[in-house]
Amino acid sequence: MPTYTPPLRDMHFVLHELLGVVERLRPLPAHAELDVDTVNAVLEEAGRFAADVVQPLNAVGDAQGCTLNRADHSVTTPAGFAAAYAQYVAGGWPALAADPAHGGQGLPHTLNLCLYEMLNSASQAWAMYPGLSHGAYECLHAHGTPDQQATYLPPLAQGTWTGTMCLTEPHCGTDLGLLRTRAEPQADGTYRLTGEKIFISAGEHDLADNIVHLVLARLPDAPAGTKGISLFVVPKWCPTAEGKLGVRNAIRCTALEHKMGIHGNATCQMVLDGAVGTLVGEPHRGLAAMFVMMNGARLFVGNQSLGLTEVAYQNAVAYARERQQMRAPGGAQCPQQPADPILVHPDVRKMLLTARAYAEGGRALMLYAGLRQDVSLSHPDAEERQAALDELALLTPIVKAFLTDNGWLATSQCVQVFGGHGYIREWGMEQFLRDARINMIYEGTNTIQSLDLLGRKVLGDGGRKLQSLGRQISAFIDTHGVREDLQDFITPLAQLTRQVTQLTTEIGLKSVGQPAWVGAVAVDYLRVVGHLVFAYLFARMAQVALDAQRTQAERGQPADPFYAAKLHTARFYVTKLLPETAGLIRSAHSGAAPLMAMDAALF
Amino acid sequence: MPTYTPPLRDMHFVLHELLGVVERLRPLPAHAELDVDTVNAVLEEAGRFAADVVQPLNAVGDAQGCTLNRADHSVTTPAGFAAAYAQYVAGGWPALAADPAHGGQGLPHTLNLCLYEMLNSASQAWAMYPGLSHGAYECLHAHGTPDQQATYLPPLAQGTWTGTMCLTEPHCGTDLGLLRTRAEPQADGTYRLTGEKIFISAGEHDLADNIVHLVLARLPDAPAGTKGISLFVVPKWCPTAEGKLGVRNAIRCTALEHKMGIHGNATCQMVLDGAVGTLVGEPHRGLAAMFVMMNGARLFVGNQSLGLTEVAYQNAVAYARERQQMRAPGGAQCPQQPADPILVHPDVRKMLLTARAYAEGGRALMLYAGLRQDVSLSHPDAEERQAALDELALLTPIVKAFLTDNGWLATSQCVQVFGGHGYIREWGMEQFLRDARINMIYEGTNTIQSLDLLGRKVLGDGGRKLQSLGRQISAFIDTHGVREDLQDFITPLAQLTRQVTQLTTEIGLKSVGQPAWVGAVAVDYLRVVGHLVFAYLFARMAQVALDAQRTQAERGQPADPFYAAKLHTARFYVTKLLPETAGLIRSAHSGAAPLMAMDAALF
Repeated sequence: MPTYTPPLRDMHFVLHELLGVVERLRPLPAHAELDVDTVNAVLEEAGRFAADVVQPLNAVGDAQGCTLNRADHSVTTPAGFAAAYAQYVAGGWPALAADPAHGGQGLPHTLNLCLYEMLNSASQAWAMYPGLSHGAYECLHAHGTPDQQATYLPPLAQGTWTGTMCLTEPHCGTDLGLLRTRAEPQADGTYRLTGEKIFISAGEHDLADNIVHLVLARLPDAPAGTKGISLFVVPKWCPTAEGKLGVRNAIRCTALEHKMGIHGNATCQMVLDGAVGTLVGEPHRGLAAMFVMMNGARLFVGNQSLGLTEVAYQNAVAYARERQQMRAPGGAQCPQQPADPILVHPDVRKMLLTARAYAEGGRALMLYAGLRQDVSLSHPDAEERQAALDELALLTPIVKAFLTDNGWLATSQCVQVFGGHGYIREWGMEQFLRDARINMIYEGTNTIQSLDLLGRKVLGDGGRKLQSLGRQISAFIDTHGVREDLQDFITPLAQLTRQVTQLTTEIGLKSVGQPAWVGAVAVDYLRVVGHLVFAYLFARMAQVALDAQRTQAERGQPADPFYAAKLHTARFYVTKLLPETAGLIRSAHSGAAPLMAMDAALF
Repeated sequence: MPTYTPPLRDMHFVLHELLGVVERLRPLPAHAELDVDTVNAVLEEAGRFAADVVQPLNAVGDAQGCTLNRADHSVTTPAGFAAAYAQYVAGGWPALAADPAHGGQGLPHTLNLCLYEMLNSASQAWAMYPGLSHGAYECLHAHGTPDQQATYLPPLAQGTWTGTMCLTEPHCGTDLGLLRTRAEPQADGTYRLTGEKIFISAGEHDLADNIVHLVLARLPDAPAGTKGISLFVVPKWCPTAEGKLGVRNAIRCTALEHKMGIHGNATCQMVLDGAVGTLVGEPHRGLAAMFVMMNGARLFVGNQSLGLTEVAYQNAVAYARERQQMRAPGGAQCPQQPADPILVHPDVRKMLLTARAYAEGGRALMLYAGLRQDVSLSHPDAEERQAALDELALLTPIVKAFLTDNGWLATSQCVQVFGGHGYIREWGMEQFLRDARINMIYEGTNTIQSLDLLGRKVLGDGGRKLQSLGRQISAFIDTHGVREDLQDFITPLAQLTRQVTQLTTEIGLKSVGQPAWVGAVAVDYLRVVGHLVFAYLFARMAQVALDAQRTQAERGQPADPFYAAKLHTARFYVTKLLPETAGLIRSAHSGAAPLMAMDAALF
């Protein structure tokens, strides 16, 4: 059975040594009281909760799955899920980053991302229940009416109620413009919603008193397509004026999906049969309001794969230390044993370091994005908020797609380290792989993320957001480019920066009059830009580690092996993983013709 | 639910137009009667059996799995498996490539590989039962005593008995030198075997009258390590002198593994408790004898992923024609529908073409290797046999590792085409992915394959086998290099050939005195050489297709769209998949240091 140790040391490194989160956030009035000790104490407690309470549920959740009672439409989650959730609520965790105005603790989102990384390592299926609630909270916090906020935000922040996103319908997933669920206005200002939704994660369960569904639907006069979609809040139980549970609403789970993984999370078909809802935001502007939740959810999905990468890595390393097969290339390292531990073998190390580099790079990117999110929400200066929001907009599809593709690669490599045992359920490694697969699909497939990045975020604003990132990278190169000890990192970073600039220009030119170009190269492009961001963050991490090593040496302190490991991982990344960009750029150069030339009938 | 159409047209193309199998094999006395009509009739009938009888069992096999009766150690396979196997035996399929001396039909192995590709597309889990029998047949055919051959080969060829390979033990998989099962010689010339084996595919089941286990074990005087392993045949039921079933032997299934996929195949823990066996081949030389079976099994495993790639592709294309989401990049292609079929989208095409190119390239490589196998077994000229055997030795690890890695990538892309539905069991796509995962692990992990290729097959003979392949490629380039219409294929092929030569030389030099180099770069190297072979085969297929198009045009015949599709797929391959080599070569250049520098304690 897998085990899990919260990676607190690496979180401290990223939060404090790399990003200086406390120094960066204290100037914001919302975080004026923030200090390192609080951050670390929260991390430690969160890690303990994830490892001790949630992680033991992961395998049982996979084995049992959820069950639907077709008579009363109730869903039972796996044994222990509800009790763990009650502990989660009792511990105040749902309120961590919620607004103090609604009972929240007002801590940074960056810290909340650390909490969720650990929950995702412990059990992705379990972590989705609170994860979606958090998104519903953010959406209503941004777009709800004062009444809606007063009714829904306190129980969501408290965690006694949970939330969902009801977007997909049987005939429309990516293309929400096709959705058919309709909302009829009522005399009392409410709406009656009728339709069918599928793939609703945590749509029904036994963890919370009430479930707050955020539902996309069409008003009677709605224009066709995505410009005719409105957003509604549809509670499972209609709250009374006092906020108690009133009548049971006509939104019900009619079936559970049988899935490749995340068995512990209830993926529901929901039928709305004249369910009562209230409008969130403007009529026909529902998609824009929902995007608050979707953007948060996209970061969350990237975080899921980060969590899986970390836990798969930890268990693969443990196995590679234990399992003895063959001898090290240069001769026996443990001659007293019948064979050496497989950690001596170069390709086993390559598989492990792949997962390690993707975990460490992913964590740095995740928290870098989280810091931008906190600045975008709470900085007193509007320009600073906008700049942070722009950078977050650029990074969100990268976090979602690059981290989930990496998580798929990494968990597969960690399965491979186990050989045949990796394929056997009891070892728990294949569950990580099965769970990781959904992350490339939901909350917008990774293809959609790549179109969002290249089409909207890069070409859509004439490259400004990308240039802003480029300026940061250039500033780093200008400051540290003369350092001999950083050349292993700065040289490939500078080269890739030039290549991304050239590639972006080329795509911008070629896509004029060749509308298929963007779609043809977007996936390659996102992966190249993902590597650019990783190369930048690994270079920065290397600089911090080298400086820390020098400081320790100057002070006569013992060398902290953490920094040596960080530098090895960074060197592995630039020599073994970053080169993938060479092939991706060549593939992108070939553009759309190789994909579009073949007549549809010939497939 | 997935469907399956046997790819007969592409098989005809590869067998007849690309490889000229009949012309190549008729000079061999064993195949003097072979003709195109026979080959095609067998293919058609085999395809019908796979599609009509086996394919409908695939989903049920996954859902039901196998069950062990702990009281009598019997295993029940999923509903329908045994009946389908009885039909398989009644149809004479097990005997297809078996020696007529033992009741076989004596048809080429190349044709048998086509049969198995289709069975693997239909149900990998089911196809493993006859697949392993075929390997046991080959092993005993090559190394059995006359008595063993007389006893075991006819029922194996007939299929009334099946076979297994019993290698792995709990503490040893890759490192067979550690194995502990022991064999005590008896006064009557037999041996009593005692030990525990795990991961025994088809180790126990209800398909056949008897099961012929090929078991690796140690004699009492055996030297330590792999040079002290002997091979034994251990039947489930000891045959009487008349070949009937005698007493039940002391080899029993004690547990079934719960696996990520291939649920329909029984993966058994087997206990030998003084089981009676007879020696196959020389004492202490069991590994060499077993390698006959393992080499066949490695081709078979590559073939499994080829089959999965083909069936996943077919179903993803069908979905991409049906599912309507969004509009084509250049504007609506089906304006009368609410949205266009997703086949219009560039990245959907890229995912589909990835699977298609890996299927077509994989089939060409598989049958190219199959032809070498037939020549190596039956050519009257010893030099020709040796040359074919050498080339087959070079290709076997590539078939196993490159095709199974490609199958993993391809089935994952085909899942992605389905979006959320790809993750749902009912659609059957995620089963292909789960089944495909084992193929990278068993019969020697893909890391082991890469070490076999680089360490043994390339560096081990001073590059002679690789040079022989290089001469074939050069001859092709010399013959066709001036053709304008082949430049898209010949230019990258010539470039990659030079790069492989340089890379091989570099590795040969660097690995002297740096023993970790081979293990550090072998996986990258295998993938590069795999692409070289694919680039060569796609160039040859393009040449054949272009020539066929010209011939049709000259004769005023209508253009066969098959050739246009082949050329599109080949162009896609060289522009979108082959470029991966650029990154792999860069990664390999960086050698061992990035993997070996980190102290084991720092992982």
